[in-house]
Amino acid sequence: MARHTARDLRSENRFEVLHALFELGPSTRQELARHTGLSPATVATLVTEFLSGGVLHIAAVERNTGGRPQERLTIDPDRGRIVGVDVAETYVDATVYDLALGALGHGEAALDEHENDPDYVVDGILRVIESAVEDGGTERERIIGVGVSMPGHVHPDTGVSVFAPNWDWHDVHIEKMLEKVLPVPVYVDNPLKAVILSEMWFGVGSVVDSMAVVNLGTGVGAGIAIDGSLLRGTTNNAGEWGHTLLELDGRQCRCGRRGCVEAYLGAPGLRTTLAEIDPEHPTLRQSRQRDFVEAVADGLAAGDPALTGLARRTSRYLAAALGDLVNLLNIPSVTLTGWTSDALAEWLVPALRDELPHHVMPGSLPGLTVEPSRVPGNAVALGMAAFTLQQFLTRLGLASPAGTRPRPDPDHGIDRSRQGQRL
Amino acid sequence: MARHTARDLRSENRFEVLHALFELGPSTRQELARHTGLSPATVATLVTEFLSGGVLHIAAVERNTGGRPQERLTIDPDRGRIVGVDVAETYVDATVYDLALGALGHGEAALDEHENDPDYVVDGILRVIESAVEDGGTERERIIGVGVSMPGHVHPDTGVSVFAPNWDWHDVHIEKMLEKVLPVPVYVDNPLKAVILSEMWFGVGSVVDSMAVVNLGTGVGAGIAIDGSLLRGTTNNAGEWGHTLLELDGRQCRCGRRGCVEAYLGAPGLRTTLAEIDPEHPTLRQSRQRDFVEAVADGLAAGDPALTGLARRTSRYLAAALGDLVNLLNIPSVTLTGWTSDALAEWLVPALRDELPHHVMPGSLPGLTVEPSRVPGNAVALGMAAFTLQQFLTRLGLASPAGTRPRPDPDHGIDRSRQGQRL
Repeated sequence: MARHTARDLRSENRFEVLHALFELGPSTRQELARHTGLSPATVATLVTEFLSGGVLHIAAVERNTGGRPQERLTIDPDRGRIVGVDVAETYVDATVYDLALGALGHGEAALDEHENDPDYVVDGILRVIESAVEDGGTERERIIGVGVSMPGHVHPDTGVSVFAPNWDWHDVHIEKMLEKVLPVPVYVDNPLKAVILSEMWFGVGSVVDSMAVVNLGTGVGAGIAIDGSLLRGTTNNAGEWGHTLLELDGRQCRCGRRGCVEAYLGAPGLRTTLAEIDPEHPTLRQSRQRDFVEAVADGLAAGDPALTGLARRTSRYLAAALGDLVNLLNIPSVTLTGWTSDALAEWLVPALRDELPHHVMPGSLPGLTVEPSRVPGNAVALGMAAFTLQQFLTRLGLASPAGTRPRPDPDHGIDRSRQGQRL
Repeated sequence: MARHTARDLRSENRFEVLHALFELGPSTRQELARHTGLSPATVATLVTEFLSGGVLHIAAVERNTGGRPQERLTIDPDRGRIVGVDVAETYVDATVYDLALGALGHGEAALDEHENDPDYVVDGILRVIESAVEDGGTERERIIGVGVSMPGHVHPDTGVSVFAPNWDWHDVHIEKMLEKVLPVPVYVDNPLKAVILSEMWFGVGSVVDSMAVVNLGTGVGAGIAIDGSLLRGTTNNAGEWGHTLLELDGRQCRCGRRGCVEAYLGAPGLRTTLAEIDPEHPTLRQSRQRDFVEAVADGLAAGDPALTGLARRTSRYLAAALGDLVNLLNIPSVTLTGWTSDALAEWLVPALRDELPHHVMPGSLPGLTVEPSRVPGNAVALGMAAFTLQQFLTRLGLASPAGTRPRPDPDHGIDRSRQGQRL
């Protein structure tokens, strides 16, 4: 049985304070204690630790009549730089952030979907990091860590891409390959874990503590948080909503099974639906996925009837598949993210909302919100930067006298101390 | 945001100690501290509280050479009696337990599936409790509480059956109706919450802390635990796996949607499948669901080819639907319970295990166990008895000087202090 030890609580409390600072902006110790529900003594200890690690600085000192001067604390953005990287099937996208997770520089490049050599992918990652660093005018020695999201099944503790079906990768030591070249700690995880972390820190996480964020791109999946904790599952493989059934024995999915949600809602699935509606439609001539989806958005804006039919059918598939997610988990919030969502949400969401009541159980419908994520920028890159910040704070804690060494969870072989299991 | 307060921790610790006593049997304070990971001081405080409340007694005193005498503690079964009641679409089943949740007496009666008057159902519940009490030779004044599981959407805080589709009930105050007649506290919940509590206390919960238990009867659903916490969802409606899709636009489900898992795996769904295989099959003449399922089991034992086909198709549906559950949650354990499972598991499980690898993602398959639940007796009644025991302990804690009054959760209106959210 997993147990909450004093160490876990300490890390959790640390992240609670950090989280509160992101939500509240510059705050007094009292405000942090009130917002987090932690005791003033705990907040004082953590603030002292953060101040000595240079993570916080004093933004202002307020002198109220009669009382002691109150220090207003804030994250020191200049304590370091973090790079968040979103590696997808068709592109690499990197952002340089300051320590307060403000974006400073950005880089991106297309990946050839048909090239699966790990060296090719690693080379692409390094080049895009380089261009983001240049774009931000970042001094390299100030980078404290790099967080990289990789598609497929990733083991964050070992930094291994266990299985990436799009490249047919098995057990590729991606973190090791990157750390050979980059002189800073590298953290690897899966986009579903990254987007839910973003949502918890910078999206609906400020109002709910259970939620799903659905990532729509080449593949589709859901990041899930329950009662304020990211759901990882036994092997960090939770959230594979894209590989739940829409239709037993339906369309062939690239996972090998038939009828998965992804075969209908992933970008190639949209193409299949359009081909069913009109096999001669000119948009089908776009061979690259992102060009195809952009052309669909353009055609929808122009009122193309076949594409309007595509949007209607896709909204219905999405409503059905989100209905399953809500019926199973009874969560109060689902947000949409990913590049397909960015391009098509304005066409999909209104019809989706009309369809949802036909798929969600009546008892789970009141109060349910379904909306595009309001997390700014690339939610995957931001989530990986947030992971990297957590790791940095955990390492800071290790250096402090009260800290103890994190050790791997004996149950599952995943070192949860590296993963911010609970924020 | 939900916050863990000292009060929550206190309740959790209390349940941890109780849980350890169920797992370990008579134990010393040191053994309890080692097993739970709680500090010796915390265990000592809780044991003192339990001893003064009469929940524990000293089973033995061991005198080791040189050391202090060690008290071996155990739950005092005779501190009181608890009744657990499983109300289903077609029957009521009640068990009287001692405080250590040993079964003392049992009663059951059929319910007319076509009669939906709340007074008829309440009368059935009272009669079956009466016969269980008589069967166990129980003195009525020793009963400390009654836990009743009701089908459909239940609000445990208000004791209201919010919606029961089988009876077309809306907002029936079932707890109030029962408490008018029964002179003890009554707790109402949903069978999915009851079966997962049973599984956590008396099933695979001793080896894993995330799991699902799938309940197969007239309706089907899943009780879910994540990291040792029962998943309730925002409105206590989580676990409606029976109303996730097997096939978009497939069979009509009684929930109004088409293609839900329940339309294939609920007892009426089995009948539909058999009618598709052989519309003239004699087993279809059994008009009552339980008679039908028993006749299927008998026919399978006799090697009936149509029924063998039914079992094969049902196993495949079950594998597909469990695959979705595992792909989404990446849990290491699924157990099967409910009267359909009791009757048919030996025919379904071997084929189910063969089919599962076709439906579960490779990364979620290693270490996954799928097996009939080993929880003894009626898991729903036992789970409701466990809830009632938790409530009893919570009330004991209230009487102690250190206890504080539980208050409703301002987020959702569900008083989590009554629900054993975390065990």
